[in-house]
Amino acid sequence: MATDARDAFTIGIDLGGTNLRIAAVAGDGRILEKIGLDTEVSEGRERVVEDMCAAVTEIEQRLPGARMLGIGIGVPGIINLVNGTIRQSPNLPGWSDFPVRDDIERRLRTHVILENDANAAALGEKWAGRGRDAAGLCMITVGTGIGGGLILNGRVWHGMDGMAGELGHMTIDPNGALCGCGNLGCIEAYAAAGAITRMAMAAIRMGRSPALVREAEDLGDLTAEIVYIKAKQGDTVAREIFEMVGRSLGVGIANMINIFNLPLYVVGGGVARAWDVFAPAMMAEVRKRSLVYRSTATRIEASALGAEAGLLGAAYLPLMREVQHGKF
Amino acid sequence: MATDARDAFTIGIDLGGTNLRIAAVAGDGRILEKIGLDTEVSEGRERVVEDMCAAVTEIEQRLPGARMLGIGIGVPGIINLVNGTIRQSPNLPGWSDFPVRDDIERRLRTHVILENDANAAALGEKWAGRGRDAAGLCMITVGTGIGGGLILNGRVWHGMDGMAGELGHMTIDPNGALCGCGNLGCIEAYAAAGAITRMAMAAIRMGRSPALVREAEDLGDLTAEIVYIKAKQGDTVAREIFEMVGRSLGVGIANMINIFNLPLYVVGGGVARAWDVFAPAMMAEVRKRSLVYRSTATRIEASALGAEAGLLGAAYLPLMREVQHGKF
Repeated sequence: MATDARDAFTIGIDLGGTNLRIAAVAGDGRILEKIGLDTEVSEGRERVVEDMCAAVTEIEQRLPGARMLGIGIGVPGIINLVNGTIRQSPNLPGWSDFPVRDDIERRLRTHVILENDANAAALGEKWAGRGRDAAGLCMITVGTGIGGGLILNGRVWHGMDGMAGELGHMTIDPNGALCGCGNLGCIEAYAAAGAITRMAMAAIRMGRSPALVREAEDLGDLTAEIVYIKAKQGDTVAREIFEMVGRSLGVGIANMINIFNLPLYVVGGGVARAWDVFAPAMMAEVRKRSLVYRSTATRIEASALGAEAGLLGAAYLPLMREVQHGKF
Repeated sequence: MATDARDAFTIGIDLGGTNLRIAAVAGDGRILEKIGLDTEVSEGRERVVEDMCAAVTEIEQRLPGARMLGIGIGVPGIINLVNGTIRQSPNLPGWSDFPVRDDIERRLRTHVILENDANAAALGEKWAGRGRDAAGLCMITVGTGIGGGLILNGRVWHGMDGMAGELGHMTIDPNGALCGCGNLGCIEAYAAAGAITRMAMAAIRMGRSPALVREAEDLGDLTAEIVYIKAKQGDTVAREIFEMVGRSLGVGIANMINIFNLPLYVVGGGVARAWDVFAPAMMAEVRKRSLVYRSTATRIEASALGAEAGLLGAAYLPLMREVQHGKF
């Protein structure tokens, strides 16, 4: 199944609400070429599609003689897999009635597959990251919000409407913190970057953390990364916040282990970079709450691919199809 | 795929820690013959296996001329599907090193398949109950404890060690009630029959429910069924207990819907007979906590097969194999 640049490659596109990344990827998961752009959402979808297509053409020209097998696009929203449209995406307003897949296929005369971005990240880890040797995995993407992707028997589990994997909105404390979704006690309300800054601001307002105040004269400047740096430096409040992150992820992962009994659970997204400060509390919680974890060889690991997971997973989409159709 | 008694049937066995039930089932899910026995666990496994085999032989003699396709056995424990053994079962002590499947196959000269009892119940509902038209379902079995079974793409999801579906030990309140498993805040600690009697006893001790005291002069006589009858009669404390049951199941089901986006969630087991008193609180909780539920045509229903779900699911096991091997 080995391919190289002279032979064949696929294009992975990570279509975020802010950043648009396009890469050519070889059959072994190596990134051959990459272009990073801003997603000009406010200029309208036509502009964004044009930017994507121009970048693909540019990349193709950089790889003369190589065969492009297709394009996979990771999108922050719910995909209609049959029609190749984006059913719902808060980050891409006005795209919901637009035939994204067919439009790009027509423009570039190649095969295009859309996938939800968290599912794409899970697929990336399966193909080229932590999950190479695992039959399946559960990926929890912890960034501004929390998403999830499930790979069962080597394939993405979409559910009947493409809405599976909403792991961030698992209730872990029925009378807990208010989540952006309106529910009380979602994991997202305790472990996402937004929750980290919210908890830090609450501590500052209560006068509990002079160290955090010094870092953020204007509260609007406070980021999860600043809280992480303070935690690394030993600040008590910052450490408590990341313990809450770890305990909350631990409850969620323990629940997933009890439900799925999968070999591997991967924590990705920007917050996963703070693994060293939240993982001990997370692991302790999982051990305490999951008999299945205690009786099995279940792995819980930080993403190996980091920000590239979604890009690589998107690039794998046309390759999966090729594998299924026996071309590899 | 229709078969009838003169044509072919399978045997389903529900091997419980207390009751042993054996049935002949036609290809359309009709029960043709049934035998109910006590499971003589204390007499040793040899005795229990002999009882099972004698009952199968008895049933075969009652159906002269019909062809028996095989035997499926639902067991309250973790199954080693490869070896056909029971890896772990608190209700069947001393069975863990015993080749159940091979022993019964040798004695009766037919094909035998073991399955976990909650998985068998889920399969029963899929085949002959609520799930006939559903591609997959999640079954929550609420009895003395709480178990679960997942049917994904028409097949039981076992997980890598056969331990998937431990839905009763999903944490829904991290600092909540102590569960038998040692964890705090499992669904089982709020919604199983044991939790119902525990909550009722606590109310009696606090002098909150004279009506429950009258029903149970000796606290040891108190059952979940008595609490249910009192709830039906309008007793405030009993109604509050079943509201807690409903809210707890609702949190768990909302989480499952957000994870799986399956078309159907079935509540089974003895406590499901109290559906009328806990379902309103359960449904309200699911609506509140699951965006996926609010945006889709997800069904949540009480088991259609009741106590027969596991028996029918067990009988379906050899039939599934026949379907896979093209004999139907």
